[in-house]
Amino acid sequence: MVYAVIMAGGKGTRFWPVSTPERPKQLLRLFDERTMIEQTVHRLRPFVPAERQFIVTIDEQVDEFARQVPELERDSFITEPFARNTAPCIGLSAVHLMKRDPEAVMVVLPADHRIDDRDAFLDTLRTAVQFVEEADSIVTIGIRPTRPETGYGYIQYERDEFRPGVHRVVTFAEKPNRETALRFIETGEFLWNSGIFIWSAQRILNELEEHTPELYAALMEISSALDGDNSAREKRVHRAYQSIKPISIDYGVMEKTRNAYVVPGTFGWSDIGSWEEVYQLDNHDSSGNVRQGSVVTIDTRDSYLVTRTSLPVAVIGMEGIIVVHTDEGTLVCPRDRVQDVRLAAELVQKQKS
Amino acid sequence: MVYAVIMAGGKGTRFWPVSTPERPKQLLRLFDERTMIEQTVHRLRPFVPAERQFIVTIDEQVDEFARQVPELERDSFITEPFARNTAPCIGLSAVHLMKRDPEAVMVVLPADHRIDDRDAFLDTLRTAVQFVEEADSIVTIGIRPTRPETGYGYIQYERDEFRPGVHRVVTFAEKPNRETALRFIETGEFLWNSGIFIWSAQRILNELEEHTPELYAALMEISSALDGDNSAREKRVHRAYQSIKPISIDYGVMEKTRNAYVVPGTFGWSDIGSWEEVYQLDNHDSSGNVRQGSVVTIDTRDSYLVTRTSLPVAVIGMEGIIVVHTDEGTLVCPRDRVQDVRLAAELVQKQKS
Repeated sequence: MVYAVIMAGGKGTRFWPVSTPERPKQLLRLFDERTMIEQTVHRLRPFVPAERQFIVTIDEQVDEFARQVPELERDSFITEPFARNTAPCIGLSAVHLMKRDPEAVMVVLPADHRIDDRDAFLDTLRTAVQFVEEADSIVTIGIRPTRPETGYGYIQYERDEFRPGVHRVVTFAEKPNRETALRFIETGEFLWNSGIFIWSAQRILNELEEHTPELYAALMEISSALDGDNSAREKRVHRAYQSIKPISIDYGVMEKTRNAYVVPGTFGWSDIGSWEEVYQLDNHDSSGNVRQGSVVTIDTRDSYLVTRTSLPVAVIGMEGIIVVHTDEGTLVCPRDRVQDVRLAAELVQKQKS
Repeated sequence: MVYAVIMAGGKGTRFWPVSTPERPKQLLRLFDERTMIEQTVHRLRPFVPAERQFIVTIDEQVDEFARQVPELERDSFITEPFARNTAPCIGLSAVHLMKRDPEAVMVVLPADHRIDDRDAFLDTLRTAVQFVEEADSIVTIGIRPTRPETGYGYIQYERDEFRPGVHRVVTFAEKPNRETALRFIETGEFLWNSGIFIWSAQRILNELEEHTPELYAALMEISSALDGDNSAREKRVHRAYQSIKPISIDYGVMEKTRNAYVVPGTFGWSDIGSWEEVYQLDNHDSSGNVRQGSVVTIDTRDSYLVTRTSLPVAVIGMEGIIVVHTDEGTLVCPRDRVQDVRLAAELVQKQKS
């Protein structure tokens, strides 16, 4: 059976001051009437019904998620005691799924993607799942690049199909500079790394055992704790998780395994990773500005200008900046510095405490 | 006798969002425990006691002024029905003073100056008043320039003294560009135009009669209305004032009269006309920033960063900007565009209504 595992443990620092630890990105309405998590669950339903969808998150966010997606059962929430990057999160999900269905095939995907063409997206997933069911492999979805984006990782793949719609992965490349990104696109051999994976729960646990044995050992301790006495269970899981070192699935498994395949997709995909992406995807006025709320501008261009309170924001003589005001605070940042919003949010958090 | 006339009718748009129509600059604590109007009244007292100080303002602000400077009698407030720039404001004050004391000498000064050396300031006023009492002339205070400021008007004066401490004015110059300002300073013949004037009430009315006859006629109608029946008085004043065209005293009288003299002063003077001046006069940290309230910065220099609510402001990668957040709104503006804050405040006001 196919299960979806939606990773939704983000701390919400990249979208400060709209997102906060108590109100992370996944719970925001960024482009739609629905929050990103609602959109993600809804998008998958024709292929993976709600009863086979799981959300991995941290304890503090479960209540809010449960409110937002009431179609999910309470035991569809897998909680991490602490965020430890993607490999432990995925390993924990695999452990949970194995107990429910040892044959489980997992579609792992972040909660914060924007996807324009649902049918094309689900067709791509179907191709990947079918291949995993036949070949017990590690599959990732690659996005055909539409611009020399420097904010995404890339996947180099073999041009010849291994199976219909499926290619071998040659290598994974970190976020490139602009020159390298242009070269990647010119070769036609590179795809964006979407962070969407398909594999069986057993296969990914085998890969973790081979490439991250310490993490695997902790996961097995958690697995045995979950089978054990109710009263000691939580304490054992907590202690085992505490010992885990943060590591990404890309670094821990994808870059090391010999079983990696990619299914290229074209479905209008964006990783909503920063205010810059939100700016790019929103509607611009004739000055290139995005405006929300009571915003006054003089000689201001190519900027993302938002007030989410009743208070006005006035911006004079600026180009390419982000100004976001909410009841959490105000951010002022050039569009090409959005990668520092996370740090600013952490500094604000520190100043508060 | 010497009287002070403090012009305090500003609309408070240049310091939005700290100042507002209901809370103009004169009523703000910008550098001191006391508001600017409190400082102005207090500063004059050793030379002009409170009972001979008058404040000219608009109706809506009288109550707040009266609260802030309780040492002034209620009939020390002269109210304009509408703001009509400085010449009508000064003319109206002269009309009022003539009724109290036909020999009145007026010291006219704005409520929003910062003056560091009170003793030197009052000495300069004494020199000017003494000269006016002897020579019945039009006297202005000129400030010895300390930098090639482009935000002030300049006065060219004869180097040789006409009387001790008093010089003839050669000409008035509008706000210059930087090159011209540098040339002004090099010649040593230019002073900053402080907007502080000394003359007898009768003399300035004579000048207004000669150079702005329409305004003078309206002032005479007001004068006769003030002597008239209580019930019709307000209506007549209102109607007469409505007919007055806005005109500055510089343009209406100073640039035309042959009786202009200047007393140069050196007492640490600033016209607090914009956020840029407030930035310049405040204490900077090692990055050249002025900070007030919960402000977080990353790579940000030479900026004025203020939050007057409990909400934090985070600024990333900016140089030379003004960010001011209050419970009226948020301003984001390069320091060299502060002259447009007035327009932004007006646009905000318009959007509200």
